[in-house]
Amino acid sequence: MTTTTPDLRVAVVGAGMMGADHVARITSTISGATVVAVVDPDTARADAAAATAPGAITAADFDEALAATEIDAVIIATPGFLHEAVLLPALDRGLAILCEKPLTTDEAASLRVLEAEQKLDRPHIQVGFMRRFDQGYRDLRALVASGEHGALLALHCAHRNATTPPSYSEEMLILDSVIHEIDAVPFIAGEPIVAVEVKKPRRNSLAPEGLREPQFVILETESGTMAIVEINVNVQFGYQVTTDAVFESGVASIGRETGLQLTTAARSAVAVPPTFKERFGAAYDTQVQRWVDAAHRGTIDGPSAWDGYLASVVATAGVEAQKTGRRVEVDYAMPKPSFYDLPGVVSPGE
Amino acid sequence: MTTTTPDLRVAVVGAGMMGADHVARITSTISGATVVAVVDPDTARADAAAATAPGAITAADFDEALAATEIDAVIIATPGFLHEAVLLPALDRGLAILCEKPLTTDEAASLRVLEAEQKLDRPHIQVGFMRRFDQGYRDLRALVASGEHGALLALHCAHRNATTPPSYSEEMLILDSVIHEIDAVPFIAGEPIVAVEVKKPRRNSLAPEGLREPQFVILETESGTMAIVEINVNVQFGYQVTTDAVFESGVASIGRETGLQLTTAARSAVAVPPTFKERFGAAYDTQVQRWVDAAHRGTIDGPSAWDGYLASVVATAGVEAQKTGRRVEVDYAMPKPSFYDLPGVVSPGE
Amino acid sequence: MTTTTPDLRVAVVGAGMMGADHVARITSTISGATVVAVVDPDTARADAAAATAPGAITAADFDEALAATEIDAVIIATPGFLHEAVLLPALDRGLAILCEKPLTTDEAASLRVLEAEQKLDRPHIQVGFMRRFDQGYRDLRALVASGEHGALLALHCAHRNATTPPSYSEEMLILDSVIHEIDAVPFIAGEPIVAVEVKKPRRNSLAPEGLREPQFVILETESGTMAIVEINVNVQFGYQVTTDAVFESGVASIGRETGLQLTTAARSAVAVPPTFKERFGAAYDTQVQRWVDAAHRGTIDGPSAWDGYLASVVATAGVEAQKTGRRVEVDYAMPKPSFYDLPGVVSPGE
Amino acid sequence: MTTTTPDLRVAVVGAGMMGADHVARITSTISGATVVAVVDPDTARADAAAATAPGAITAADFDEALAATEIDAVIIATPGFLHEAVLLPALDRGLAILCEKPLTTDEAASLRVLEAEQKLDRPHIQVGFMRRFDQGYRDLRALVASGEHGALLALHCAHRNATTPPSYSEEMLILDSVIHEIDAVPFIAGEPIVAVEVKKPRRNSLAPEGLREPQFVILETESGTMAIVEINVNVQFGYQVTTDAVFESGVASIGRETGLQLTTAARSAVAVPPTFKERFGAAYDTQVQRWVDAAHRGTIDGPSAWDGYLASVVATAGVEAQKTGRRVEVDYAMPKPSFYDLPGVVSPGE
Repeated sequence: MTTTTPDLRVAVVGAGMMGADHVARITSTISGATVVAVVDPDTARADAAAATAPGAITAADFDEALAATEIDAVIIATPGFLHEAVLLPALDRGLAILCEKPLTTDEAASLRVLEAEQKLDRPHIQVGFMRRFDQGYRDLRALVASGEHGALLALHCAHRNATTPPSYSEEMLILDSVIHEIDAVPFIAGEPIVAVEVKKPRRNSLAPEGLREPQFVILETESGTMAIVEINVNVQFGYQVTTDAVFESGVASIGRETGLQLTTAARSAVAVPPTFKERFGAAYDTQVQRWVDAAHRGTIDGPSAWDGYLASVVATAGVEAQKTGRRVEVDYAMPKPSFYDLPGVVSPGE
Repeated sequence: MTTTTPDLRVAVVGAGMMGADHVARITSTISGATVVAVVDPDTARADAAAATAPGAITAADFDEALAATEIDAVIIATPGFLHEAVLLPALDRGLAILCEKPLTTDEAASLRVLEAEQKLDRPHIQVGFMRRFDQGYRDLRALVASGEHGALLALHCAHRNATTPPSYSEEMLILDSVIHEIDAVPFIAGEPIVAVEVKKPRRNSLAPEGLREPQFVILETESGTMAIVEINVNVQFGYQVTTDAVFESGVASIGRETGLQLTTAARSAVAVPPTFKERFGAAYDTQVQRWVDAAHRGTIDGPSAWDGYLASVVATAGVEAQKTGRRVEVDYAMPKPSFYDLPGVVSPGE
Repeated sequence: MTTTTPDLRVAVVGAGMMGADHVARITSTISGATVVAVVDPDTARADAAAATAPGAITAADFDEALAATEIDAVIIATPGFLHEAVLLPALDRGLAILCEKPLTTDEAASLRVLEAEQKLDRPHIQVGFMRRFDQGYRDLRALVASGEHGALLALHCAHRNATTPPSYSEEMLILDSVIHEIDAVPFIAGEPIVAVEVKKPRRNSLAPEGLREPQFVILETESGTMAIVEINVNVQFGYQVTTDAVFESGVASIGRETGLQLTTAARSAVAVPPTFKERFGAAYDTQVQRWVDAAHRGTIDGPSAWDGYLASVVATAGVEAQKTGRRVEVDYAMPKPSFYDLPGVVSPGE
Repeated sequence: MTTTTPDLRVAVVGAGMMGADHVARITSTISGATVVAVVDPDTARADAAAATAPGAITAADFDEALAATEIDAVIIATPGFLHEAVLLPALDRGLAILCEKPLTTDEAASLRVLEAEQKLDRPHIQVGFMRRFDQGYRDLRALVASGEHGALLALHCAHRNATTPPSYSEEMLILDSVIHEIDAVPFIAGEPIVAVEVKKPRRNSLAPEGLREPQFVILETESGTMAIVEINVNVQFGYQVTTDAVFESGVASIGRETGLQLTTAARSAVAVPPTFKERFGAAYDTQVQRWVDAAHRGTIDGPSAWDGYLASVVATAGVEAQKTGRRVEVDYAMPKPSFYDLPGVVSPGE
């Protein structure tokens, strides 16, 4: 007789593009988890997402879902300012949590979440910095950790999107886009960011009116490693995220386009992916599979709420740097609580 | 109340490297399937593979497994000459079947399997030509089908392995290695192979004694497309499988190495994967997930037994070409039975 | 007081595209040589080419030029069947000679030229196989000679042109185009070609009517190294010449497109050169400069008439292979005369 | 009768590595010029360099050379602080001048040179910013000028050397190395630099004691284009100079390693050149050939003394930025004199 582990019963809160993706991913790609509820105040959106998940109910809010069905775990894919309202009750019930970035949109909210989580026996929140699950980032982190080519001195990061909607604001360059590098740089370097500065080259006239971009965001880590991040979100041609890491005796690059190389019409070319989904789809899959596997063991296997807090503090400093043109030092409210040392949890890339 | 589909109960027959991989894959990566039995006459091997699959029983032969537990589907990963002995009873019980290549090792056996399968309502056997699930091969097939750059005129294929064991024979160059191109070339070209010829350049002195390789295998399809396959299995440096497709007004290439590019010690380099697992791991995952999804619908979603039969006939002709040095025309016993037209089944790459 | 060496006085015979190029090259790029005469029965063509060379006279035939001015050296850029008529009087006068490929268009003529040359004290004819002066070919030859990665087992050569004029015949695939690989393969391998075979895949419908191409030309060297040459002269997209060399423990590739990489319009691309001039312009410059320098020393510094003879014999065999579909063994009339051992002359790539 | 133009009689002043290179280049590679004198106070050095130039005399100083032989043109390859002492007498005699970068080492000296030159009928000084003759830089400039992909917004430049001698100082990062980008950025962008700032990431412990590097030098042009220059001169692995240009709707990259690609020992690699000579050798040849050709026409064909002056002012600002950590605006003493408009002179890349 087979006695297999029952699937993790997952509620997905937020049924926009990202939430709907997670519903389909859990249902079709991920092993060991089932979507049992899709939560969104927009009923049509919830229904559409739930249609891909046989047996899932829909609910207008998280409480309604909790009352209607048994839930083991929650994926939070609402806008960031609504995260806290789901995180706190989910922590209260001891659910496994995968929270899309950012953890929260301000430091005070992040601190409340950290405090609530530390009442539990161990970390329950994993934050959706999925680049940590991309093979390139992991290889780069491993290369830094190996020390094989000496210390990491500098990083060149380029973060390019085809276009942005009119609603995309200058702050979102930092809070929505560079936030990925704000997590990835310490992940690669193995140490926190201590200062931020923003430089503004000539404006792209193809950006929506009022949006002053591209920008260069300069991130400095504790030992002095400097990352120059080109944030450039109206390049028209597609989605491109690259990193060149400068070591004492070597340079490593990730993120160049790959795939079928076509020689025709006077050129030899490789396609550039249109969106982040083609570029990082496999990383999302790996992230969610590892989170599900960890949830079965009662733990997390990726960036914690503490990592989410760190990113949120740096992002806030980044917005100040963007506004003032000055170098802004980052001020963390406390050292890392030992609660987040995660004994027995293998961090990505280790 | 959730009413999710129960998992497909899979028996894995053969617990060698490939079978053990499938056990771990179904258990950890694939959604919608559970390994319920691992079958191998070598008890220790069966136990080792089953240890990664909670709840799976082990059995010394397939009959024993069928008697001991409920089985919906079977993955056959034994040596090729043992495939028929599992295929026939599995067909008899109407199980979903994923059979590693080759379907069988001789044409007569393949014809018996085709005959047995056609007594069922629809195809039940999917053959493990997993390259069809690699993005590069699919892109290439789509490019041919699009006609965008004119007809496909020629293919250059290179199939390189680091080393072979002493047991690897000259026939295995065709039957075990080129068999992948024998399936991939018609998949890409959209038409069957009609002739084979083998050319033998200078022998690699690093190959095991008695093995005369590399070789060039020339495959011709119905409309005259010619594929030159370099089979070269002791290149020492790793695993490398590339294809250049020559169109009337373009050339497309797949399989170049990608990943982290490291500039150090006077060179700029990308790693070559050591084995087929790193190169085609994602293709194996996709193949098995799509087979599981199709099995839930009572069908297959990949190369059928008919494709397995075609490859087996070409491979037999290839061995004759290898022995005689002559161009050997391929003689199929019958046209494709309409049974294998698979209405409603989306072929890979379509 | 400076006493510089006077310039080599060069007559260029043939003022078509290739001859006119040589006139301009000698005048503007090459050090130590001056064009003193341009010879062509087409007076307008001769005048146009001579206009770029201050002080050069024009003549309708070579004798007229010899009578009109002092000549030290001659570059022969007429059609191949006219080469002998210039080679013999030039040898008779002991001129330094750079003869465009092929040396002659039939073996008997080549033998007459070899015989005439051997009456002189040392080789005077250099044949214009300019690929030997391309850095890639030299690097490849050096890699073979080093033995670092074991013996050379096989070569994949692709020779692609955008289009051909209606006058281009099937024989010219061998005599005009593959002739370059017929010289380059022994140059790289370090040993002569002993057999040729031709395979014909599906015809490119974009080729001029009556031209059956592309073709695969299989060249075998003495030790069994096999070169598969794809000759493909109506690919539309540009000029592309690549070689992949397969060693016992490595693979080396030359000829991939380089230059500015442009990412735009959903792809990342490098330009393909339109013609051989962009691809091999630097090799032509190097070839002519080294020939001029050698002429000042009374010798040659590149492929000799003997190399031209070898290529002409292989090309003849190739045309027979093309017509018969059979493997044709190459039969050289004699072993290499010691006259062509060129003591003191550094061969290219050594 | 031929009446060819007599060679340009060139004196090379300074017989160090760069001067000796120029002597050999003029003698062996360049058409239309002859080295008639090699000048260096170190007699042995002068003799060694002159040995490669048949007929050239040697002299301890420039006056001695001028007295001893007829000189049409001079190449100045002494240390920068000695340039003025040769430039002024050379201008006085109306010689054609190719002056290695920098024009002079301080702004006052540059202004004296500009003043002296403007007494002549037209510019006589060409400054040795040889990158303008590299195909990549020219292609990039042409792409900017075309406007095809919108305005140029930003540049990422990396300038990496294997190692530096102990004598190499922090100022030399700007004055000797970044000076190339200080000229190349306006050349590409088509407009002058208006501000400089320097950022200092973690120090490379492999740099000679006391040298604080790598550094990021941020150059801003008139319209706001921002160039981030990574100057990094102890990377150990070789010489690497790359530029990525960010346009409004595209990104263009130059300087990636090319050449023979070798797959062996678990990786696929391209060699990195050891020094600037392999990387920019062809650009030096082109620069000197075009200067010689222009000198025969009584003009220059490359960066003028005015360009040398501009670079010298920016470099001075760069050293201040390096010392203060502040953004330093560049203050040019005057607008471009119409004298330097060079009617009839084709600028590189145009």
